[in-house]
Amino acid sequence: MPGPRKLPDRDELAVWRDFVETTDRLRSRITTRLHDDTGLSSGDYAVLLALSEAPGNRLRSSALAAHIDWERSRLSHHLGRMERRDLIHRESSPDDSRGAEIILSPTGASAFHAATVPHLRAVREIFVDALTPEQLKAAGEIAAALRAHFR
Amino acid sequence: MPGPRKLPDRDELAVWRDFVETTDRLRSRITTRLHDDTGLSSGDYAVLLALSEAPGNRLRSSALAAHIDWERSRLSHHLGRMERRDLIHRESSPDDSRGAEIILSPTGASAFHAATVPHLRAVREIFVDALTPEQLKAAGEIAAALRAHFR
Repeated sequence: MPGPRKLPDRDELAVWRDFVETTDRLRSRITTRLHDDTGLSSGDYAVLLALSEAPGNRLRSSALAAHIDWERSRLSHHLGRMERRDLIHRESSPDDSRGAEIILSPTGASAFHAATVPHLRAVREIFVDALTPEQLKAAGEIAAALRAHFR
Repeated sequence: MPGPRKLPDRDELAVWRDFVETTDRLRSRITTRLHDDTGLSSGDYAVLLALSEAPGNRLRSSALAAHIDWERSRLSHHLGRMERRDLIHRESSPDDSRGAEIILSPTGASAFHAATVPHLRAVREIFVDALTPEQLKAAGEIAAALRAHFR
């Protein structure tokens, strides 16, 4: 049983603010580079990545929402915009509560393929190159500890 | 001089994906808790925090935008909504390119004050409690290394 909750002390709070502000800037720098280099938003990329790794390049919208940790309504609007750009197709089955099936289109597969190298280069330059091997290892351990604690 | 850029290897890429997905979920959990507990969005909180720490509780909109790392147009829309909720006031000076002066209102100061303890409690429960003291220290060092590399 945990004891009574204290508030973070000054040092803990300073680390929190540093960490959350810096990871926010990290995300925005990677997102800007992705968009400048490839025309894809981070949401586009997350959807294309999930579909490209799914069996048969297709996923139910409910599974896709869980996979990328988005609300279904937000995802649904985003998928509408991606469908109009021919990056994905949707096969609706109105009586299925798990939602439409989302399918990677040839255009989407080709956009994802073309984005891979520029995106990986940005990840290397902005994230990997900033850290020592020990810091990179620690980043993985911190992520694992936070994830385990979410549950 | 750095050598030719390589792409991240499989392990580096796994750490990147883990790290970015997990910090995204961390942010969304803290944001949801903040909103549930206090009615403030993370943008509201960032603005109120910056103003509450500024001399005289006032900042030029240009300085505020730089401080919280937002585009000025996005900030301007957000400040309009905060002004309608009486959380801030704006004093415009049309010939000043640094933008209007943004002032913390008594309502804003009181909303920020009331949010402090619930927000700090969420930071402790969701972030600090998830990590060992060594991991917390490493999180601060990773943030510092990333920030130094942005420049």
